[in-house]
Amino acid sequence: MTISIDTRLDLAIERELAVPVGLVWRGLTEPDLLRQWFCPKPWGVSECRIDLRPGGEFHTVMRDPDGREYPDTACFLEVVVEKRLVWTSVLVADYRPAAPATADEKECAHIAMTVIVELEQIPAGTRYRAHVMHNAPEQRQAHEAMGFHEGWGTTITQLEELLQQKPA
Amino acid sequence: MTISIDTRLDLAIERELAVPVGLVWRGLTEPDLLRQWFCPKPWGVSECRIDLRPGGEFHTVMRDPDGREYPDTACFLEVVVEKRLVWTSVLVADYRPAAPATADEKECAHIAMTVIVELEQIPAGTRYRAHVMHNAPEQRQAHEAMGFHEGWGTTITQLEELLQQKPA
Repeated sequence: MTISIDTRLDLAIERELAVPVGLVWRGLTEPDLLRQWFCPKPWGVSECRIDLRPGGEFHTVMRDPDGREYPDTACFLEVVVEKRLVWTSVLVADYRPAAPATADEKECAHIAMTVIVELEQIPAGTRYRAHVMHNAPEQRQAHEAMGFHEGWGTTITQLEELLQQKPA
Repeated sequence: MTISIDTRLDLAIERELAVPVGLVWRGLTEPDLLRQWFCPKPWGVSECRIDLRPGGEFHTVMRDPDGREYPDTACFLEVVVEKRLVWTSVLVADYRPAAPATADEKECAHIAMTVIVELEQIPAGTRYRAHVMHNAPEQRQAHEAMGFHEGWGTTITQLEELLQQKPA
């Protein structure tokens, strides 16, 4: 079920990727692939765990160019192979509510969000759509001001370039 | 999948109900039935909407004996007919993160929680288990101090008594 976008609360991005949908799904769900594109370089991902089921953990550790690390844990809500992947930052493994952000994490602007990624096979490859839902207009604005469109756009390009090398 | 109970973070309650499992499921998921047992009397439920699907809304308005109302919106995560129902207070309809509690809501101790209710058919009727997951020991303690065991226990008794009248 596609959920309509609330422009007051949501951010969205859509791209056509010159890569088959099966490969894009692998890029989204295999830790060894995800680590290579999920952060705009020169940031990287030093750790990634993916328990691909509703209620399963989605854990990443982002690393900045100085080696400082930013762990993040989310929870998958829907997993429809090669079609739809939904996760939220407000739950952790097994649907447990996430602990409130500490002052330290607030510095890195830990945003409450649910992400819906939808894939569709098209003649050129794959239509990729990400729909990011927030709980207040201020949260949407904060996420946009953090560079959502540029950052997310960069990572999608990194994903496409990675997959064009046809991983084993 | 049964999720193990973390005694530091969780509360749980288990009861045997002398009612068939199909009726217990109806009591949990039909608004007209739920309104009659979901709050310990003399509190009541003045409104209830149930969109019974993962991502669907679970909306109730509780009413105290003075007529003051307390709306609450949650989101269903898993719906396995007559077996398992999971919902969380930290998401609203379509998995959108819930807005942070206002000062007014904090008075009523709006607790971040995920509830897993599991039903099992047994010779005596139905084994009912509720597992309530919190994000910190303080939240578990606050919920317990609010009268979790007494309040939840009372509502389960109300549910059993209602269903023993065999609703149409």
